[in-house]
Amino acid sequence: MSLGNAVIGQSGGPTAVINQSLVGAVEALQASGRVNKILGAHHAVSGIVQDDYIDLTDRTPDFLERIANTPSSALGSSRDKPDAAYCKRIFESFARQDVRYFFYAGGNDSSDTCRIIAEMAADSGYDLTAYHIPKTIDNDLVVNDHTPGFGSAAKFVAQAFMGDDRDNAALPGIKINILMGRHAGFLTAAAGLGRRQGKNDGPHLIYVPEVAFDEDTFINDIERVYKEHGRCLIAVSEGIHDKDGNAIITKLMDEVEKDDHGNVQLSGTGALGDLLADLVKDKLGSRLGQKLRVRADTYGYLQRSFAGVASEVDQHEARQCGRVAVEHALKGEHKSGSIAMVRKPGGGYDIDYKRIEISDVAAKTQHLDLKYIVDGCDITPAFYSDYLAPIVGDLPVVESF
Amino acid sequence: MSLGNAVIGQSGGPTAVINQSLVGAVEALQASGRVNKILGAHHAVSGIVQDDYIDLTDRTPDFLERIANTPSSALGSSRDKPDAAYCKRIFESFARQDVRYFFYAGGNDSSDTCRIIAEMAADSGYDLTAYHIPKTIDNDLVVNDHTPGFGSAAKFVAQAFMGDDRDNAALPGIKINILMGRHAGFLTAAAGLGRRQGKNDGPHLIYVPEVAFDEDTFINDIERVYKEHGRCLIAVSEGIHDKDGNAIITKLMDEVEKDDHGNVQLSGTGALGDLLADLVKDKLGSRLGQKLRVRADTYGYLQRSFAGVASEVDQHEARQCGRVAVEHALKGEHKSGSIAMVRKPGGGYDIDYKRIEISDVAAKTQHLDLKYIVDGCDITPAFYSDYLAPIVGDLPVVESF
Repeated sequence: MSLGNAVIGQSGGPTAVINQSLVGAVEALQASGRVNKILGAHHAVSGIVQDDYIDLTDRTPDFLERIANTPSSALGSSRDKPDAAYCKRIFESFARQDVRYFFYAGGNDSSDTCRIIAEMAADSGYDLTAYHIPKTIDNDLVVNDHTPGFGSAAKFVAQAFMGDDRDNAALPGIKINILMGRHAGFLTAAAGLGRRQGKNDGPHLIYVPEVAFDEDTFINDIERVYKEHGRCLIAVSEGIHDKDGNAIITKLMDEVEKDDHGNVQLSGTGALGDLLADLVKDKLGSRLGQKLRVRADTYGYLQRSFAGVASEVDQHEARQCGRVAVEHALKGEHKSGSIAMVRKPGGGYDIDYKRIEISDVAAKTQHLDLKYIVDGCDITPAFYSDYLAPIVGDLPVVESF
Repeated sequence: MSLGNAVIGQSGGPTAVINQSLVGAVEALQASGRVNKILGAHHAVSGIVQDDYIDLTDRTPDFLERIANTPSSALGSSRDKPDAAYCKRIFESFARQDVRYFFYAGGNDSSDTCRIIAEMAADSGYDLTAYHIPKTIDNDLVVNDHTPGFGSAAKFVAQAFMGDDRDNAALPGIKINILMGRHAGFLTAAAGLGRRQGKNDGPHLIYVPEVAFDEDTFINDIERVYKEHGRCLIAVSEGIHDKDGNAIITKLMDEVEKDDHGNVQLSGTGALGDLLADLVKDKLGSRLGQKLRVRADTYGYLQRSFAGVASEVDQHEARQCGRVAVEHALKGEHKSGSIAMVRKPGGGYDIDYKRIEISDVAAKTQHLDLKYIVDGCDITPAFYSDYLAPIVGDLPVVESF
């Protein structure tokens, strides 16, 4: 009897460490001797339905290590959300290729895709073991303490703000930086990780999607900080919305672009930052009776794919998630599952890689705990010291007079 | 007789290594025993006229090393362009403080400020030695092979494109990244430094201010690349302009903001990227009869102030420029000057730190040599191998299937 083959796919937005998960899975499969061929889904489900696979079976450790350290999804990604007909085509390809193990790294949309395929396989009596491998820079998967990809994106954001805060101190003004995070504010909160005690370091204000955004409050907050420090550095999540749930960016754009999942385009445009900068110039400028220096940057895809900045902890954990998914799949106790990173109780930082049901994680969103949010415009020190610092690891040192 | 005091200032836009130049100058002054006090101009000329100085005389090597490795201008910067009345106030402060040496790190606007002050000192018989220390991420100072700050900004841009190219390969589409560079295309050209031979890596198109920008040509270029690769990664300088010299960004913005030097605001807004993205969606989308995935990111201040990414060569050279400026000033042969980094002829990469007249460098702009520009939309391999690679140093490795 043939051993059968394994397919690994990478879905959704790339991260700095999703290739670590890929390589972790490949290594574990190579070492197991339990599959015949290891196939990479070229551009995820959109490749599978075209039998477009990359053979990973005999890739060398050196090559795999280079892949692991490369940002973005080396197999190619896809934003397709398979419906029933699409899933049928996936099975047909799996049957043609004698695929018996499927590993799919992605966020909650992607875990949902994985769940649908696993259920369809079960319903149709096709022997398939399907595991979801967690990934998202937004850090919005439930059950997980945090997800692979988040730590590296958070490190990029923290370092960016450490530098930009020094920039803002050198040439004082009001600076707004827009960060990724459609529904969850974790990555935006990371902007404050590098702040030093007692130095008045920015970001001085942090706005996350967990709190309804109000323009007047925003202007009042900035006025208060600007009067105190003569400058103001602000972190704003792209996903901020008003009290009725309307995304602030939609108030601006004539034509809003949506993806196949019905999500409004938030990234890849500087529109929200420019809108908020104009708002501050107009409203606060006229209130203070002066022309204010207001600038906005939108960090965009740099947050997920910058080459050369990654959290070592994140790299290690992403690799482990790939390995552990394979171990559980080969164990054969469950035909499907997802790997969740759960923090072990106790003083030190240690992670349990735990098998959970895909339905526990699919299509649900984890939010930043409200206990970490101060007055709707800042993040508590405990968020950084207790939660974020061990995930991100070392940061550069900044010094000032 | 008193030894007199020295003032060091940092002007214009911050860089990742302008604090290296500051520390190089402080170290050389400390070691010389030739001045009484070493004073930092708090926010450059705007601090000087208010006698707002930071005492640097007895700062420890450890502290200075931390300052040197911190991005942005630790003393604070200014965009003031002193006129005659302003310069008079500078002298009055210098006289009150018994300042006999003035070191001013900055770009060409700043060197011009330095020149004015040096000339006024000479005219009024005030014994002052004034040296300009080169700095600019735009790399647009004449005489210099390149300037401190450029190498680190180029490294950031190169790493960003290495990652974003993998991102664009994973989720194919048309991606436009806007880079700093008002008049000179060096930093935008750096986008291609990490491209691998024979891999079809992006950026596939590079637009610099040295070439007049034409919308139709731009669309045709993208169409060609998109048809060949199914994707297109594009580097565009913020300073692109049409054949009549009109900045492309001014075609869009109702109200253009200008600084005290009369420069239009280019950075701190995503407007140019969004304008170009809309142009491509509309014009190329209708030509190809499909909805195109077009995104734009504007790298903004990250290019000059990101904490944790710097070229070691750039750090070293910036430090040397500060030291050498002090050495020339103390030598006393010339009452003013600027330090230029000139590449030594021959095979290896080696830099001469040469004293030149401030007037040789002030208010002039160096441009990217046209021999490095291919068809108005790309940069030659020779630019990278011969010119840029030794300035930037090591880059991360990326790998692909």
